[in-house]
Amino acid sequence: MTRWKLTVEYDGGPFLGWQRQGNDPTVQLAIERAIGAMTGEQIVVHGAGRTDAGVHALGMAAHVDIEKAMTPFRLREGINALVRPDPVSILAVEAVADDWHARFSCTGRRYLYRILTRRPPPALDRGRVWHVGKEMDVDAMAEAAAHLVGTHDFTTFRSAHCQSASPVKSLDSLAVERIGEEIHIHAAARSFLHHQVRSITGCLGLVGIGKWTPAEMKAALVAKDRTALGLNAPPDGLYFVEARYPA
Amino acid sequence: MTRWKLTVEYDGGPFLGWQRQGNDPTVQLAIERAIGAMTGEQIVVHGAGRTDAGVHALGMAAHVDIEKAMTPFRLREGINALVRPDPVSILAVEAVADDWHARFSCTGRRYLYRILTRRPPPALDRGRVWHVGKEMDVDAMAEAAAHLVGTHDFTTFRSAHCQSASPVKSLDSLAVERIGEEIHIHAAARSFLHHQVRSITGCLGLVGIGKWTPAEMKAALVAKDRTALGLNAPPDGLYFVEARYPA
Repeated sequence: MTRWKLTVEYDGGPFLGWQRQGNDPTVQLAIERAIGAMTGEQIVVHGAGRTDAGVHALGMAAHVDIEKAMTPFRLREGINALVRPDPVSILAVEAVADDWHARFSCTGRRYLYRILTRRPPPALDRGRVWHVGKEMDVDAMAEAAAHLVGTHDFTTFRSAHCQSASPVKSLDSLAVERIGEEIHIHAAARSFLHHQVRSITGCLGLVGIGKWTPAEMKAALVAKDRTALGLNAPPDGLYFVEARYPA
Repeated sequence: MTRWKLTVEYDGGPFLGWQRQGNDPTVQLAIERAIGAMTGEQIVVHGAGRTDAGVHALGMAAHVDIEKAMTPFRLREGINALVRPDPVSILAVEAVADDWHARFSCTGRRYLYRILTRRPPPALDRGRVWHVGKEMDVDAMAEAAAHLVGTHDFTTFRSAHCQSASPVKSLDSLAVERIGEEIHIHAAARSFLHHQVRSITGCLGLVGIGKWTPAEMKAALVAKDRTALGLNAPPDGLYFVEARYPA
């Protein structure tokens, strides 16, 4: 048996999310079916995170145990050939220790959120950005973001369905930058609550268009109350960028 | 009557191309239907170029004559609301002189071609890049491209269906650059032959992977023979970037 680490890119648009839900279209099921077809084995793919319907990944990490001997090249090529036409691509494959776990060994996760500020809607990036369609104040957003960095009770920014044991998380960084007609929000933490990045982004959006002050973002955090949430941003603009592991 | 210039972004994926073909899905028809629904007028939209099926636009230019009086803002918003769900977005609208013509007044056109060199296929950029999947020699490609710049008989790089009166065109620039895992080819000319950018790109691809030398690109040009064409690149990676007009 070999435990393999997979690095996965996917377009979340056609999926109900990462996590398997019976035979509904999910990224996990798509990869499991491809590996099952290659190996004839009953395998389970474990992801570093569970992205929601419509959320994309540039570099999701996952692992899978396979009995059949094969090279990393052949495994990657085989999955990529068999996963079609689903928009999933295995970017890298690497043999890891038997106790390495995509979720539990992970020490850092990074997300990107893309907001489109121009008034005309996206044609090429439909489903890939949150179309706010208004000029946004990046400095105010950055000021608001700074209130959230560090260790806090993020109850306000947590989905009612969140399964995390505690609402306290350490947000290592939350950067806001303008890239042409887009605002990019970069979030990094050891782990995130369910909907945390989308909820934070929704409120940063309110700050960006002047509906909230940076101080109101801080007040929302301190409230520790889901009803203090201003707005949950749509899944379209969210990308799981990278999972980090000890060397 | 007002003549309006439209600047249009579109995802060419679901279309048979720009040019109307009865009721088949084309970009021209999608925009004409939206304007027809807004105005109740029988109008025709004229584009600066005719992109093929699967070719995208970041800034196609077009014009249309409309009797009904309206503001540029209302025209743009109205088209963008009514063109849904087609992946077309009117980026800008501007009143122009009655003798201004999107095609005949155009003095310069720019295209971008995106090649993905990494081995794993694209998931998020499927249909948006040409997946060559091999490392490419950008310097050799640039050397080959230099042979094509200037005024030449481009018969080799011309579709059998090309309606241009002459195969002689002046290619103002043809730049090749590496952007991460992609090669970008930027082409600028007053006008292009049908399939010219895709045919040039296909041959540059052969040079990039070492199947052709830069000298063979020059030989293909000099042959003035369509059968000397090495490869026609797929439409997926091609973007109409901009049409230029006299100030």
